[in-house]
Amino acid sequence: MNKHGNSVKAYPEHVLKATCVSCGADAGTSVFAYTCPECGANLDLAYDYDAIGAEWKIDDLMANPERSLWRYAPLLPVHSPPNNCSLVVGGTPLVRVERLARHLGFENLWIKDDTRNPSASLKDRASVIGVQHAGELGLSTIVAASTGNAAASLAALTAHTGRQAVIFAPVSAPPAKLTQILQYGATLVPIEGNYDVAFDLAHDAAERFGWYNRNTGINPVLVEGKKTVALEIVEQLAWKVPDFVMVPVGDGCILSGVYKGFYDLLQLGWIERMPRLVAVQAEGSASVVNAFSEGEREPQPVAALSIADSITVDRPRDGHKALRALRDSNGCGVLVSDNGILAAQHELAAFSGIFAEPAAAAAYAGLKVCQATGEISPDASVVVLITGSGLKDIPAAQKSIQLPAAIAPDMAAVEQLLTRSGVLE
Amino acid sequence: MNKHGNSVKAYPEHVLKATCVSCGADAGTSVFAYTCPECGANLDLAYDYDAIGAEWKIDDLMANPERSLWRYAPLLPVHSPPNNCSLVVGGTPLVRVERLARHLGFENLWIKDDTRNPSASLKDRASVIGVQHAGELGLSTIVAASTGNAAASLAALTAHTGRQAVIFAPVSAPPAKLTQILQYGATLVPIEGNYDVAFDLAHDAAERFGWYNRNTGINPVLVEGKKTVALEIVEQLAWKVPDFVMVPVGDGCILSGVYKGFYDLLQLGWIERMPRLVAVQAEGSASVVNAFSEGEREPQPVAALSIADSITVDRPRDGHKALRALRDSNGCGVLVSDNGILAAQHELAAFSGIFAEPAAAAAYAGLKVCQATGEISPDASVVVLITGSGLKDIPAAQKSIQLPAAIAPDMAAVEQLLTRSGVLE
Repeated sequence: MNKHGNSVKAYPEHVLKATCVSCGADAGTSVFAYTCPECGANLDLAYDYDAIGAEWKIDDLMANPERSLWRYAPLLPVHSPPNNCSLVVGGTPLVRVERLARHLGFENLWIKDDTRNPSASLKDRASVIGVQHAGELGLSTIVAASTGNAAASLAALTAHTGRQAVIFAPVSAPPAKLTQILQYGATLVPIEGNYDVAFDLAHDAAERFGWYNRNTGINPVLVEGKKTVALEIVEQLAWKVPDFVMVPVGDGCILSGVYKGFYDLLQLGWIERMPRLVAVQAEGSASVVNAFSEGEREPQPVAALSIADSITVDRPRDGHKALRALRDSNGCGVLVSDNGILAAQHELAAFSGIFAEPAAAAAYAGLKVCQATGEISPDASVVVLITGSGLKDIPAAQKSIQLPAAIAPDMAAVEQLLTRSGVLE
Repeated sequence: MNKHGNSVKAYPEHVLKATCVSCGADAGTSVFAYTCPECGANLDLAYDYDAIGAEWKIDDLMANPERSLWRYAPLLPVHSPPNNCSLVVGGTPLVRVERLARHLGFENLWIKDDTRNPSASLKDRASVIGVQHAGELGLSTIVAASTGNAAASLAALTAHTGRQAVIFAPVSAPPAKLTQILQYGATLVPIEGNYDVAFDLAHDAAERFGWYNRNTGINPVLVEGKKTVALEIVEQLAWKVPDFVMVPVGDGCILSGVYKGFYDLLQLGWIERMPRLVAVQAEGSASVVNAFSEGEREPQPVAALSIADSITVDRPRDGHKALRALRDSNGCGVLVSDNGILAAQHELAAFSGIFAEPAAAAAYAGLKVCQATGEISPDASVVVLITGSGLKDIPAAQKSIQLPAAIAPDMAAVEQLLTRSGVLE
């Protein structure tokens, strides 16, 4: 029996250990622990790569017609794929953006377009694993704190599978995300406070009421869902590893997820090296990048403020793992301004046809900074991770464009407008 | 030489004829004609099914790893797939929505989730074909009139491929869609007037300036893109034809596209019958459904008004073909109220995890009406076509939900809210 009164082991056999990233203690794999019972730090799941690699070959994977992230089931920390979920999570396009590359002067540029998940963000990768894991533990209520995307994602998955979602959100979250959450029928608890306050309350509520806690900042299962984006990137590049992957960073869980995906493939011997991971943060929410440049192991809290709500975080909950991902991948950190983010959003859309929310566009803004500093040279192969759709925050997207005034419905007025805008000479 | 000064034939060899849907004249396949040179009515492309079927078997299709709509290239009216487009259009999930089906009391219910196209609507299927066709004709400026989705879609595809888009939109179009269009860098011409006025101006501008006209209402190529949604449905159902397909109808082009897809497969002998197509219209924009119930061949204009902007149309530009699709599929028409649409949007999201824009949710609202009238029985197999994302029109989605007031960040306030909302007892 685990602490939730369910006799299923917390993890399948191919998960060997749940190790503390700070003190190294093993939290075990029979009973589910969110954090280290010794020191309270985050846990890291270790797989039995020998056993996995003995039974699962690249050819098996290539022959698998499954398009969703469940094609990577042997590397996921749940007993089985869900039998109650037909929403297709993952399997998003890796888009070769030749026109954007030419505009930028790069040779090999790809966008991993995770806006094309069910709820229009990468967070679905974590939610689908979390909902399945909760089910395997016998829990049907799942709680999350979120600036919006993780919550909307959880709400979509619980709506589809018939679980209950309770969402703690800062009242400042973009209305589109709150609307999405409520449309999916989740219970919303809007908090007078920021993300960090909502996070702590969600955590306390989960403890108090015995709910499953879908907070990627601590729950070690969720990062295992996020890592599938890296598995897909490598498979879509025909098992070639890109030189750089640009990752927007708030709590740091997407970064540690991306790292874990490449790490898994390295351990399996399916790739020969790590890509260099680049953490992109908003100048106003720079905790991880600051800590990395100062060589610290844990990021210090900041008073975060940025237009990119999804990466605006005072205290990065997965900062330890995020910093390790940067160190171990020979990566780096880069800061982008809000204006840089908004300009990057428009440039990305206008030259690739991919409309990203500000937090996602930050990854592209980071590439432009790295190009300017020479950190990334134009002949490098680069994947930019686009984590959420621009439709999630229209007010932000309106800041960098101007809606022309409406004209009278006649051809003279049309010609005038088109001449003014340079379409006609 | 065609009229655009290009020596490429307007269509590939497997397109046999461009036949007027009204007077039956053949407009030819060498030179591109938007409409019948004899009577001005719409054209219908006829394929050489014998030749296509001789060279292309179901097994060839099944073995094709291409996931986008280009897997159906032998049934598309362009010379070749684009060599400058890596955006993945089509290949959207057909989601078995068991929880929604149980809620409704149906046994076999699927959602074709076309929100998961690059610009978050089905219109991408038409745009990608149109942009390629324009390129084959040597035209690089493409014009469209749109309430939003078709324009945003065209703008995404032209941004990616480096063409120029000029968009005529009624000034009342949802801000999210106009923002999307401008983010993609298209030239927007907002018109003081409704969709019908914008449509006519776009048409005149295309003629005047020699631009390619991406208006599905008349351009016969575009419906051929839209038909791929039907091809996918059948393939995803393992070549079983559903009993009913629920289709939201404005101009009627999606309906005629869906019909054409099933028609193609019937001609190839890959399916044995048509599904019954159900045209769903808003009560305030009921031209096609009215005409069908009165047995007319051409719909009469109405003064359209509905919350579902994408299907709010005075004069259905593809009404003739839409009515034929209903007749020839033994289909029917159904009207839904704006309140019915909003309630359906929320129910669909809360029981399936799929967030649809009002026009798309109308298709599900129509199913509920057909269930109530007995037109569709619970043991029928039904596919509901969801044509656009709810994120496209957040203000509309806010009408059926209520954002709870923010609470103080303490556990007592949390317990109070959760008790009030029924989560805690």
